[in-house]
Amino acid sequence: MILSYGNLEFEDIRYAKEDWPKIKPTTPLGQMPVLHINDKSITQTGPICRYLANIVGLAGNNNEENLEIDVAAEMIGDVLKTAYEYRFETDETRKEKVKERLLELMPIIFTVLEENAIRNQGYIALDRVTFADIIFLCAYEDIRNILENTDVINDYPNLQEVKKNLLSINSLKDWIQKRPTLPIFIYDLKNDISNE
Amino acid sequence: MILSYGNLEFEDIRYAKEDWPKIKPTTPLGQMPVLHINDKSITQTGPICRYLANIVGLAGNNNEENLEIDVAAEMIGDVLKTAYEYRFETDETRKEKVKERLLELMPIIFTVLEENAIRNQGYIALDRVTFADIIFLCAYEDIRNILENTDVINDYPNLQEVKKNLLSINSLKDWIQKRPTLPIFIYDLKNDISNE
Repeated sequence: MILSYGNLEFEDIRYAKEDWPKIKPTTPLGQMPVLHINDKSITQTGPICRYLANIVGLAGNNNEENLEIDVAAEMIGDVLKTAYEYRFETDETRKEKVKERLLELMPIIFTVLEENAIRNQGYIALDRVTFADIIFLCAYEDIRNILENTDVINDYPNLQEVKKNLLSINSLKDWIQKRPTLPIFIYDLKNDISNE
Repeated sequence: MILSYGNLEFEDIRYAKEDWPKIKPTTPLGQMPVLHINDKSITQTGPICRYLANIVGLAGNNNEENLEIDVAAEMIGDVLKTAYEYRFETDETRKEKVKERLLELMPIIFTVLEENAIRNQGYIALDRVTFADIIFLCAYEDIRNILENTDVINDYPNLQEVKKNLLSINSLKDWIQKRPTLPIFIYDLKNDISNE
């Protein structure tokens, strides 16, 4: 999404689960994602996002602005991490406990983000779109799918506004409509584009 | 350590475990650490470190340099996170599995960091000290304690060099010698200062 936002040309390579064992040893750390740029292979989601954000103008202009963005992105990351922990937990008792933790953490974080979105008139970190908004949008889609299509921002009108603002940006809208998505997805962001 | 490196004045407030339930609701997200600066309360370890690093000259000078630092810091964070997961896991079977994962991940990451340290002549991310080095030093102390005083960089002479370089910086040395430490610590960085 960050690459699309900046109208940068890129190839989005995804692997089927059954091919991963063959691909894994060819990656720098045995992990995905990897950004191949010029002759470099860059690992780690957070650093990749921040690096690209700086290139396409989705980062802050000074240390204070970057702090706002980083804190928001990290808060969203905490919720997403807990949602994934819930999704992949196989022990039923523990799964229930992780869900409790998720449902306790989510309103704490979303309340802070909602206040941010009020202050910034429809954006998460600054009074303009930043990569924190994009991370929010991706996390929202994932969490909604993990929680069986629960619209987790139903009670947060200003976070709905953030979503609406992002889905009205042409470059993002185009990418969301053409990107490959997982067949297991119940909710896809593009559902909300066609409704508007 | 970042604050000390920059010779910034600060107060290091820590709470006893039994006081935490009383303190928790007074923090912005029910989490520690919190950085109080002027009238702001800033949460999230990573963003706090990056913000302070920029103030004291431990961050990069451009997007490429910041990427190097961020990737290194994130890799170290992955190892540390797994070490903490091991430490706090109470189910014995799962604890063993997390330990296996840790002992598999650590050499992958440490080999990359060792290569970095060779290229950068004794530093983790750039050819000078950055906050990635400080994160490495803190993680090293924690992991060594979690693994019952195993010196996890024993096979990595250049990571030992990184440690030595950091422990020769006066501002860090002073702080390490005077900071409050946990009574459960078996290994304390200051042990290695007095030996040199």
